[in-house]
Amino acid sequence: MKIYLDFWLPKEALAFLRAGLRGHELLFSGKPSGTVLGSGTLDAGFAEADIALGQPDPQGVALSERLRWIHVSSSGITRYDTPAFRALVQEKGILVTNSAHVYNEACADHVFSFMLAQSRRLPEGLATPAFASGDAWLRHRDGCVPLRGQSVLIVGYGAIGERLVDLLAPYGMSIAGYRRRVRGDEPVRMVDDTGLMDALGEADHVVNILPDSPSTRGFFNGTRLGLMKAGAVFYNIGRGRTVDQDALLARFSLDPGFYAWLDVTDPEPLPEGHPLRSESRCRITPHVAGGHRGESMTLIRHFLRNLRRFERGELLEDCVMPLQNGRIAG
Amino acid sequence: MKIYLDFWLPKEALAFLRAGLRGHELLFSGKPSGTVLGSGTLDAGFAEADIALGQPDPQGVALSERLRWIHVSSSGITRYDTPAFRALVQEKGILVTNSAHVYNEACADHVFSFMLAQSRRLPEGLATPAFASGDAWLRHRDGCVPLRGQSVLIVGYGAIGERLVDLLAPYGMSIAGYRRRVRGDEPVRMVDDTGLMDALGEADHVVNILPDSPSTRGFFNGTRLGLMKAGAVFYNIGRGRTVDQDALLARFSLDPGFYAWLDVTDPEPLPEGHPLRSESRCRITPHVAGGHRGESMTLIRHFLRNLRRFERGELLEDCVMPLQNGRIAG
Repeated sequence: MKIYLDFWLPKEALAFLRAGLRGHELLFSGKPSGTVLGSGTLDAGFAEADIALGQPDPQGVALSERLRWIHVSSSGITRYDTPAFRALVQEKGILVTNSAHVYNEACADHVFSFMLAQSRRLPEGLATPAFASGDAWLRHRDGCVPLRGQSVLIVGYGAIGERLVDLLAPYGMSIAGYRRRVRGDEPVRMVDDTGLMDALGEADHVVNILPDSPSTRGFFNGTRLGLMKAGAVFYNIGRGRTVDQDALLARFSLDPGFYAWLDVTDPEPLPEGHPLRSESRCRITPHVAGGHRGESMTLIRHFLRNLRRFERGELLEDCVMPLQNGRIAG
Repeated sequence: MKIYLDFWLPKEALAFLRAGLRGHELLFSGKPSGTVLGSGTLDAGFAEADIALGQPDPQGVALSERLRWIHVSSSGITRYDTPAFRALVQEKGILVTNSAHVYNEACADHVFSFMLAQSRRLPEGLATPAFASGDAWLRHRDGCVPLRGQSVLIVGYGAIGERLVDLLAPYGMSIAGYRRRVRGDEPVRMVDDTGLMDALGEADHVVNILPDSPSTRGFFNGTRLGLMKAGAVFYNIGRGRTVDQDALLARFSLDPGFYAWLDVTDPEPLPEGHPLRSESRCRITPHVAGGHRGESMTLIRHFLRNLRRFERGELLEDCVMPLQNGRIAG
């Protein structure tokens, strides 16, 4: 089969991919994207591909007569998450998988590092290495609120949320989750849309892992942010557009104990002078939650694992658009 | 019995202590210390005390004819950890307990927050919210090294180390511990002085939780710091004097991948202009690892739990100087 690759891979990862091909052929985009998040561009060679690895252009997918499987190189699938695209791949019998398992652990680690840094007041502590006694010191210590016994709500509960629950286990926290379609096998209490209102009001920590889609855009609006209790902490490692940033700013003004930790914003990066960048209780990292040493290798390892499954006609990992007729490999 | 208190307690914690006295009497120092770490001063009233809560003056202890139990209000017992004092309390039949269980969890959280912040490169990420693509961004992501599969050596393994091991469980790390007296029931591989040399060379993360005592002073000298492998990370939440800071500075010069996270230094705070404060790979917090919201309440709860045991002649928690004749309560 022919595998079309549309993003740049470091030498080592490319060699690893080649070694795992077992007779399949690699096709390269004429204009490879510099990162796994970049959009692939329409390219003549694409028409030859049986498998697309990267972020193929939806129009190319529509035109292709050979394509049987798209392996998206990110966790987010915004570009493909439309009723029209879903119908298209159903009709053409194209499977769609994403790279959720490549980034899960690093994402969970990132938001967990946010939670612990908040609990231990790391930004304040690191900025003030000088005091070691006196009232300011006592107040600082008293401001370190242990996670033990606190509550957390995970919005957009999925593979990242699942890992986060494992990491939080030693803290005996009260954990609730929210997701579009509850599967029933989640190891925590899941809430529906009604339950979400109460859960937002109860949680000390609200973790947003929502993907960007028409149904999640602006999900954290003034109403939902307003339901959160005073002194709550909000985290976003999902996508920036799921939060109404004006409402978020308003929340800072209304609640002096409110904190937010954002790895994603809208747009990215936030322009200089954006008020969120000067809000002292808003901590921002530049969309690095899923990043980790050896990321490209993890990505290729994950793809090759799925390639073996695809060859054998087995269920693929991280399948985000399964075929409704039950056919797995075309 | 008469309980002598030599440090200042917030109203709520004092009320909680009074409510738990059950007929015992409180004596107050004429010059209460402002923090639980401050040294108590010699005071006439002390001679009346059966129990000392705080940091009593060793000379007062020597003079006392009534004292049966000292409950030290910190984890560190440097002031008392001498052969002469140990002999004195043995001879007089005075039990000594510390407050290890008050600070364990917060201390473990603090060093764990250091480890995750290092793994996720939080200081660099928070300082650079602007980039969200390009080479610097890719390099940043690649610099995030997951804890999974890495190794950690805990030097001064005790109750804090034990908790840290629980927190690290989801990462499948290789963990080794070192302590003065190995008990044999530690859940991790323990090394002796010879094994320590190898363990220092193998660990990606070296966590120092050593207390300050004549035998630990300057423990991390040039030789031991030099044994650590290139690119290792060093953490200190024990005591500042256990590290030779000149040797630490030299290590930064020799190894461009070396990082250190210090909650304790010598002296505290480090004077302005001290070279460790301007070393960009050295992160310092101002001795706050054990601090947490409700700290005084946790301390009194712990003391009262021990008071009940003392009344019943049971073994005390966190007993650091048990009586060798086996007698528990005088």
